Amino acid sequence: MTKQFTHLDSSGAARMVDVSGKEPTARTAVATGVVHTTAEVVALLAGDDLPKGDALATARIAGIMAAKRTSELVPLCHPLSLSSVRVDLVLGEAEIRISATVRTTDRTGVEMEALTAVSVAGLTLHDMVKAVDPCASIDAVRVERKDGGKSGTWIRPEGR
Amino acid sequence: MTKQFTHLDSSGAARMVDVSGKEPTARTAVATGVVHTTAEVVALLAGDDLPKGDALATARIAGIMAAKRTSELVPLCHPLSLSSVRVDLVLGEAEIRISATVRTTDRTGVEMEALTAVSVAGLTLHDMVKAVDPCASIDAVRVERKDGGKSGTWIRPEGR
Amino acid sequence: MTKQFTHLDSSGAARMVDVSGKEPTARTAVATGVVHTTAEVVALLAGDDLPKGDALATARIAGIMAAKRTSELVPLCHPLSLSSVRVDLVLGEAEIRISATVRTTDRTGVEMEALTAVSVAGLTLHDMVKAVDPCASIDAVRVERKDGGKSGTWIRPEGR
Amino acid sequence: MTKQFTHLDSSGAARMVDVSGKEPTARTAVATGVVHTTAEVVALLAGDDLPKGDALATARIAGIMAAKRTSELVPLCHPLSLSSVRVDLVLGEAEIRISATVRTTDRTGVEMEALTAVSVAGLTLHDMVKAVDPCASIDAVRVERKDGGKSGTWIRPEGR
Amino acid sequence: MTKQFTHLDSSGAARMVDVSGKEPTARTAVATGVVHTTAEVVALLAGDDLPKGDALATARIAGIMAAKRTSELVPLCHPLSLSSVRVDLVLGEAEIRISATVRTTDRTGVEMEALTAVSVAGLTLHDMVKAVDPCASIDAVRVERKDGGKSGTWIRPEGR
Amino acid sequence: MTKQFTHLDSSGAARMVDVSGKEPTARTAVATGVVHTTAEVVALLAGDDLPKGDALATARIAGIMAAKRTSELVPLCHPLSLSSVRVDLVLGEAEIRISATVRTTDRTGVEMEALTAVSVAGLTLHDMVKAVDPCASIDAVRVERKDGGKSGTWIRPEGR
Repeated sequence: MTKQFTHLDSSGAARMVDVSGKEPTARTAVATGVVHTTAEVVALLAGDDLPKGDALATARIAGIMAAKRTSELVPLCHPLSLSSVRVDLVLGEAEIRISATVRTTDRTGVEMEALTAVSVAGLTLHDMVKAVDPCASIDAVRVERKDGGKSGTWIRPEGR
Repeated sequence: MTKQFTHLDSSGAARMVDVSGKEPTARTAVATGVVHTTAEVVALLAGDDLPKGDALATARIAGIMAAKRTSELVPLCHPLSLSSVRVDLVLGEAEIRISATVRTTDRTGVEMEALTAVSVAGLTLHDMVKAVDPCASIDAVRVERKDGGKSGTWIRPEGR
Repeated sequence: MTKQFTHLDSSGAARMVDVSGKEPTARTAVATGVVHTTAEVVALLAGDDLPKGDALATARIAGIMAAKRTSELVPLCHPLSLSSVRVDLVLGEAEIRISATVRTTDRTGVEMEALTAVSVAGLTLHDMVKAVDPCASIDAVRVERKDGGKSGTWIRPEGR
Repeated sequence: MTKQFTHLDSSGAARMVDVSGKEPTARTAVATGVVHTTAEVVALLAGDDLPKGDALATARIAGIMAAKRTSELVPLCHPLSLSSVRVDLVLGEAEIRISATVRTTDRTGVEMEALTAVSVAGLTLHDMVKAVDPCASIDAVRVERKDGGKSGTWIRPEGR
Repeated sequence: MTKQFTHLDSSGAARMVDVSGKEPTARTAVATGVVHTTAEVVALLAGDDLPKGDALATARIAGIMAAKRTSELVPLCHPLSLSSVRVDLVLGEAEIRISATVRTTDRTGVEMEALTAVSVAGLTLHDMVKAVDPCASIDAVRVERKDGGKSGTWIRPEGR
Repeated sequence: MTKQFTHLDSSGAARMVDVSGKEPTARTAVATGVVHTTAEVVALLAGDDLPKGDALATARIAGIMAAKRTSELVPLCHPLSLSSVRVDLVLGEAEIRISATVRTTDRTGVEMEALTAVSVAGLTLHDMVKAVDPCASIDAVRVERKDGGKSGTWIRPEGR
C-alpha cells in the first residue's frame, strides 16, 4: 500500500493542498442523501391537513447557504466561487430525498460543497421534524456524479 | 392529525420559537453517525504503514468547531452557549464511527449541535478520504440520547 | 450640549460599552421597514399567475438568520442569546411591509437585532425582485417599540 | 404576465441561478441611503463641541466589511471576489447620507454588495446614535447606477 | 511530570473542556502587544503632516470585532457572551502599543478574547502600514492580568 | 514626507483599495512567529511522557482555517481564493516556531493571510498551554518573503 491522503504531507501534517498549477475549468458535482422519518411527518411537510408551510423552503435555503460556507466548515477545503447551487427535496412515503447540484469554474471540484448542502438541508429538516419525530436519521449522504476537471466525468458505480 | 411543526406559525411561516419562558437548565445530547468507506482507507487512517497523521484530529476539531456554529447553519436554531463538546472517532473494519456529546446550561436542548458536530466530522473525513475512496457515504446520523430540560431523559428506542 | 455617544469614550475612541453591571431581564423589540416596488412585483410574490414560490420564505429566513449575526455585523453590538425571532411580511399594493420581533433575556436590548432582521429581509426581497424591478428601495427601517430592561416600555412617538 | 423571478425555478423553488455561462467582466455598482435623525446627533457626529470620535469611521468600516459578507447574508447571492469597496458618509442638517461603490471582475453584478454596505453602515450609525435619538430611521436604500456586464450601464431613472 | 493539557483527554484527543459545573461570575482579562515599525509610520498614523485618518479607528474596531469571534477562530474556546471590550492604541517612537480589556459574566475566563483582540488589531495595523513598512512585526502578545472566577486575580509576574 | 497609507483616501477615510486594474498572477507569502513558553510545555507538546495528543494538529488546523477568513477579520483586506495553505510548527527548547506559507492566483498578495495563519496558530497554542504556562507570549509575527505580483520577490532584510 503506497497510497496516502493528499491532505497530509509526508510527515502526516494536515495542509490545504496546492492547486495553483491547475487550470480553472467548469465543474459540476451532484450529491444526495435521505432523511428517514415517519409517514406522519411527510404528511405534515406536504401540507395534507394544514396550509403547506415554509419547512421545505427553509431546508432548501439552508442547504444553498451552507454550500457557500463549505470552506469555513471543512478545514482543508479551498474557498471556491460557486456559479450555481440548487437543492431539491422529494417527499417519499416515510422519507425525504435530498439532492444538491453545485457548479463552479475554478481549480478544484465541488463535491464537498454538494455534500455540505445535502447535510445541512438534512440537519434543517431534522430540526423541524424533531418535535414530532425525534428518531429521524440522515442516511446515504454521498456523491452521485462529478463532471469537469482533469479527471472528467465520474459516476458512482452501482452497488456501492 | 392535529400536530404541527413548532417552527411554523399557524399560517405556515417559519419562526424561531419563543423559549423565553423556559428556565436555563443543564442539558446534554449525544448523537452518532457512521462513515462507510473501505478497509484500505481505515488502514491509512490508523497509520498501519505510514506515520499516523492529523486526519482524525482534523475531523474531531472540525466537528467541535461546527457545533459552535450550529445556529448559523440551521436557520431556526437558537444561539446557545455550549459548556462542552467532544467528538469521538472509532475505526471499524471498513467504517469510522462518530459520536458527539454536547452540553449546555440554557433554555433549549443541544441535539442539533450534536448532530451538526457528527455531520461536519463526517464531511471532513469524506474530504480527506475522497481521493482514495470517492464512494464513501455518511449514514445513520441521529440522536442517541438527551438529558435535562423539562422532558428529562430521552433514549432512542431500539429498532429505529 | 453635554450629551455624548455611549459607544465612544471621552477621547472619542470606539468601545463596546460595559453592561456587566446590568441584570439579565426579558426584553423585546419590534422594528419595521418597507420595500417599495411595483404592483407587478407584488403580483409575482403573491403567486397570482404562477405557483407561489419560495420568495417570501427566503426573505423571512434571511431576516431570522441575520438577527442572530447582528453582533458580527454591527461592530459595537454585544453578542446576545436570542430567545425568539419572527419576521412578518405583508404584501401591499406596490410595496412589501416587513416587521421583525426579537426577544432575549440578557443584559441589553435587542432593537439592533430587530433592525438587522428587517434590513436583511429587505435586501433579500430586493435581490429577488431586482431583475423585474431594479428601482426597488428599502425605506423607513426603524424601531417601533421596546419592552423590558431598566427603561421599560418605549413606543415610537407619532409624527417621527 | 409571463415574467418570473430568476431566483425561483418553474416549480417556485429557490435556487442560486447558474452564471457559469457568463464571462468575468469588470463591474461596478453604486448604492445610496439616508439615516434620518436630529440636528443634535449630526452636531455630535461632526464633533462640534467634542473631539470628533470614531463614529463615522466605525460606520464606514462596518459597511466595507458587510459588503464582503453579502453572500452569507442574502441567501441566493453568489460569492464574489470584490476588487474595491468604498463607503462615503456626508453629514446633512438632520441626516447622514450614505453612498457605497463596489467593484468586481466576476460573472455577476455587485449591486447587492453595494446595498448591503449601505444598509449595514446605516445600522451601525443607528446603533451609535440610538441613545440620543431612538427614532432614527434608515430610508431610500437603493441602487443608483451599475456598469459592466452584458447589460452595460444602468442609471436610476428620475422620479423613482 | 504528571501535568497534562486540559484541552486533551487521556488518549490525547482534543475536546472543549466541560465548564458546566462552574458558576457564571464576573471576569476580566487584559492583554497587550506591540507592533514594531518605523518612526515614519508612526508620524503618518499620528497625522503629523496629513489629516489624521481612520487607521487607528480601523484597528480598534477590528480588535473589538475579533474578540467577539474568538470561539470561531480558536478551536477549543467556549462561546461567551462578552459584556464589554475596549482596545487602546498608544503611539510610541517607532511602535504602536496595543492593549485590550474584555469582560464577561460567564463560566470561563476571557484571556483568549483579549489576546485575539490584540492580535487582530495588530494584524490590521500591519495591513495598513505594510506598503510603507513591509518589515513591521507583532511582538509580546500576552496576558497582563485576569480577575474573577475561582482562581481570582492573576497578575503577570515581573521578568516574564 | 509625501507618502500616505494606500488604505486611506485623501480625506483620511478607510477604503478597500481598487485592485481591478491588476492582473491575477501566482503569488506566495511566507510569514513566521514564535510562541515563547517553558521547557515543560514543550515536553508536553512533544509527548515525552504521555501519548502525543492533538495539540499541534489543532494549532495547524486553526491556522489554516484562519487564513481562509482573513478578509473577515482584517477590515480592508480583499477576499481572495487561496490555492494552498500550510502551517509548520517546530518545537524548540522553550518555544514553538510557527511558519505559514500561502499561495493564490489573484490580484493582490497573501502576506496578510500568512500573518493571520501564524497569529491564530499562536493563539491556539496559547489557549492549549495556558493552564500550564499562563505567561506564554507570541512574538516576532512578521513576513519573511513574498513572490509574484508586479513587485516580484521580496525577502525580509537582515537586521529587522
